[in-house]
Amino acid sequence: MSIQVIVLNGGSSSGKSGIARCLQAVLPDPWLTLGTDTLVEAAPSSGPTSAAGIEFRPDGEVIVGPEFRALEAAWMTGIAAMAQAGAHIILDEVFLSGSASQQPWQNAFGPLPVLWVGVRCDRGVAAAREIARGDRVPGMAASQAGLVHEGMVYDLEVDTGQAEALECARIIAAHVEREPARAITEAPTRAGARERAREAKGESVGQAEREPAGDVGREATMGDGMQEPGEGFPPGQHPRQPAAQEMTCG
Amino acid sequence: MSIQVIVLNGGSSSGKSGIARCLQAVLPDPWLTLGTDTLVEAAPSSGPTSAAGIEFRPDGEVIVGPEFRALEAAWMTGIAAMAQAGAHIILDEVFLSGSASQQPWQNAFGPLPVLWVGVRCDRGVAAAREIARGDRVPGMAASQAGLVHEGMVYDLEVDTGQAEALECARIIAAHVEREPARAITEAPTRAGARERAREAKGESVGQAEREPAGDVGREATMGDGMQEPGEGFPPGQHPRQPAAQEMTCG
Amino acid sequence: MSIQVIVLNGGSSSGKSGIARCLQAVLPDPWLTLGTDTLVEAAPSSGPTSAAGIEFRPDGEVIVGPEFRALEAAWMTGIAAMAQAGAHIILDEVFLSGSASQQPWQNAFGPLPVLWVGVRCDRGVAAAREIARGDRVPGMAASQAGLVHEGMVYDLEVDTGQAEALECARIIAAHVEREPARAITEAPTRAGARERAREAKGESVGQAEREPAGDVGREATMGDGMQEPGEGFPPGQHPRQPAAQEMTCG
Amino acid sequence: MSIQVIVLNGGSSSGKSGIARCLQAVLPDPWLTLGTDTLVEAAPSSGPTSAAGIEFRPDGEVIVGPEFRALEAAWMTGIAAMAQAGAHIILDEVFLSGSASQQPWQNAFGPLPVLWVGVRCDRGVAAAREIARGDRVPGMAASQAGLVHEGMVYDLEVDTGQAEALECARIIAAHVEREPARAITEAPTRAGARERAREAKGESVGQAEREPAGDVGREATMGDGMQEPGEGFPPGQHPRQPAAQEMTCG
Repeated sequence: MSIQVIVLNGGSSSGKSGIARCLQAVLPDPWLTLGTDTLVEAAPSSGPTSAAGIEFRPDGEVIVGPEFRALEAAWMTGIAAMAQAGAHIILDEVFLSGSASQQPWQNAFGPLPVLWVGVRCDRGVAAAREIARGDRVPGMAASQAGLVHEGMVYDLEVDTGQAEALECARIIAAHVEREPARAITEAPTRAGARERAREAKGESVGQAEREPAGDVGREATMGDGMQEPGEGFPPGQHPRQPAAQEMTCG
Repeated sequence: MSIQVIVLNGGSSSGKSGIARCLQAVLPDPWLTLGTDTLVEAAPSSGPTSAAGIEFRPDGEVIVGPEFRALEAAWMTGIAAMAQAGAHIILDEVFLSGSASQQPWQNAFGPLPVLWVGVRCDRGVAAAREIARGDRVPGMAASQAGLVHEGMVYDLEVDTGQAEALECARIIAAHVEREPARAITEAPTRAGARERAREAKGESVGQAEREPAGDVGREATMGDGMQEPGEGFPPGQHPRQPAAQEMTCG
Repeated sequence: MSIQVIVLNGGSSSGKSGIARCLQAVLPDPWLTLGTDTLVEAAPSSGPTSAAGIEFRPDGEVIVGPEFRALEAAWMTGIAAMAQAGAHIILDEVFLSGSASQQPWQNAFGPLPVLWVGVRCDRGVAAAREIARGDRVPGMAASQAGLVHEGMVYDLEVDTGQAEALECARIIAAHVEREPARAITEAPTRAGARERAREAKGESVGQAEREPAGDVGREATMGDGMQEPGEGFPPGQHPRQPAAQEMTCG
Repeated sequence: MSIQVIVLNGGSSSGKSGIARCLQAVLPDPWLTLGTDTLVEAAPSSGPTSAAGIEFRPDGEVIVGPEFRALEAAWMTGIAAMAQAGAHIILDEVFLSGSASQQPWQNAFGPLPVLWVGVRCDRGVAAAREIARGDRVPGMAASQAGLVHEGMVYDLEVDTGQAEALECARIIAAHVEREPARAITEAPTRAGARERAREAKGESVGQAEREPAGDVGREATMGDGMQEPGEGFPPGQHPRQPAAQEMTCG
């Protein structure tokens, strides 16, 4: 079952939207790009008095009220239905609460094959790009850079401080085309990630220049017919498993 | 059962988007505005070679290919699911094939209470506004002005050549708040529309400027022989029911 | 000496920019449109801490600091030099201090032939359009609607609440093409305006909707003691100049 | 005499605009950013039939007609007058004809102190960023990448493939603040550049990774109290001259 949804999660100015546009250019099928920005634009215009309850504070913090959360829940249901109906969807998201933001999306997608991609960008680089863009509330980039990845486990991570958006998109696209996706019941877990990281140490890791290494670019692939890779994942189960390649997109 | 979806159908530069923003400002609940523009923006970028198969010709004609149609079908399913999940949705649409474009939306919405609104604008006025906007392919306004209304039957029509967007929005909002919506199985019909047109001839149609919204707006409710259109609708009100006033919102 | 600069002065959401684009479409020569928005966009990005000293308050008020004023003075000098070098320029302006804002422009233009156009729009209509646009600080339209015209004397006024932008542009264009412009030393004056207003009382002023452009537009031509303002202009008509018809373009 | 104008010349998607915004953020005085985009936006809207005679071809080529050239000449005169009147100006330019495009600007600026900055970006990187941006005619980046630098001699070059816009801006800003600018009569020349390049070979050159070296990042600095560096620059005059450091902004 091939991947139906690509979720790009990253902070403001981390470069998600550029990757999304590149993905649309390099993937053979037409993919729709939707996400946080689409929803915010669709909602009544923002402000302290906004009925929809989303507020962009002068310091870059984003406050989301209960009314916006209610809209968002229906939005998620609709996006999932769109994918179930056959649309390929790239979700350009800012998980302000990290893995707690991921949970409702996982619930909405159910068994749909989803590729979870972390879009990393060094806090300083993101803040610098925010200045260069000039159309964002200053401070959002820095405040979100770490926040959005808290507790997240990804199938793949890319770092836009290390590679151009197009390169990152090609890495993601190669993954989409190559691999049958894992069903959501086999979602990446912390334990699985630790395991993969352990295994990865034995591999030769092509690192781009300037890279602070870290666990960026982890590819938690689940080969053919693989089952649950999560908690209690049997280490020896991966004889041929290329599983956790340590990669960057740079 | 109160209205869950407002469909605004009109040609390019007819003023739908302005009405949508005003509706979001005047309606008490938060409403999401989505529509043709959202889908086109979400799709891979346009051009003669676009994978998504939508093309904006230099003369203003819009050619929609089969791939775009496939995406659109999934899109409709998703939007309907969003509304079913509780989101109030304003659909800002350009029905390039008139009632034939409406049909798949009706199928997607099923029993959801939808208000179908025609946004009229004199062809010349729309073409003039297209020049004033300066961001649309010249010719789209004129080519779509009549096209999009072909075969359509509406619950309500407004004319942005006669009234500001905010006035039009107030008329629509009054309708949304006042009336229980008709289920889709009781959708407006041609027969009903002819009937209403006949009745309307006996009415004074010219509207003063700045008139209070309450009197305004053609209400194409409940044609001949129509049955109960909604919970609590007073049955005896029908026989002489002027219902279908031919009005503009100006 | 033909008109080199058209100044459109009006409040936010009064429709100046639409008129400017229509003027570019209907005038035979290429005209450049520049103005307040160009300058604000060229300046360092706004905010309470903006180095350039322009601030858009949440209530729609615009506070302009001394640093911005200094930039603006150099800006005016440059725009005037552009026109003197042969560029036809449409200035899309918001004279926050009415005639006091006009004075430095008059000084900058010197003897250049300028057409001063007031772009009127009923305060309520402008506020409604601000909501429909959705991209302006709410309140600007209402707060500026009257302010910008204080003490101003125009060659021509148009009312976008009465006519589409394209109609207004045609009236202005007809004026540009028909009449040799007055040098700045012969700028419209309050005395001339009072005179014209007095005369205008004898004329029927209410304009029907959709009237043909030809009749429309107040022409505050040629103050007292003016000499021949145009080819075929009836010479004896001047002394008590009826010229200044009080009209709208709607 | 301190620098009054910073000219950033580079191809489409090379990152000039981001650098300009960062310069506005890091420079202590307020600077206005104007340039090719401002002029194109101010001109009548483009298209094959555009009166202003600028055309963006589907393949990314830009055709500039005589009418646009005439407007442009007046535009240059005006921008120079703005700077002469005291405005600090960042010019964000695309010199489609390289040094032949520079000449009329040099004529317009006359003795004004100008800093000429080349904004380099590897053709492939620029083309990739064009895809990521999604709002440019595909092909412009590649077609302009080399073209705009033909025959150009710069005071300073930066490479956005090697460093973030903010870093590039800091290098430029340091130059602006540190050095008295050379008058235009002392503009950089090929001979001077060759000289500087020669000297540079003896220096240790901190190169960023991935750098193809070349003559990128040349900093034609004129030390404290330095005199004429131009044509006929006496080679032996720089005994301790830090002058032509080979630098990148990365």
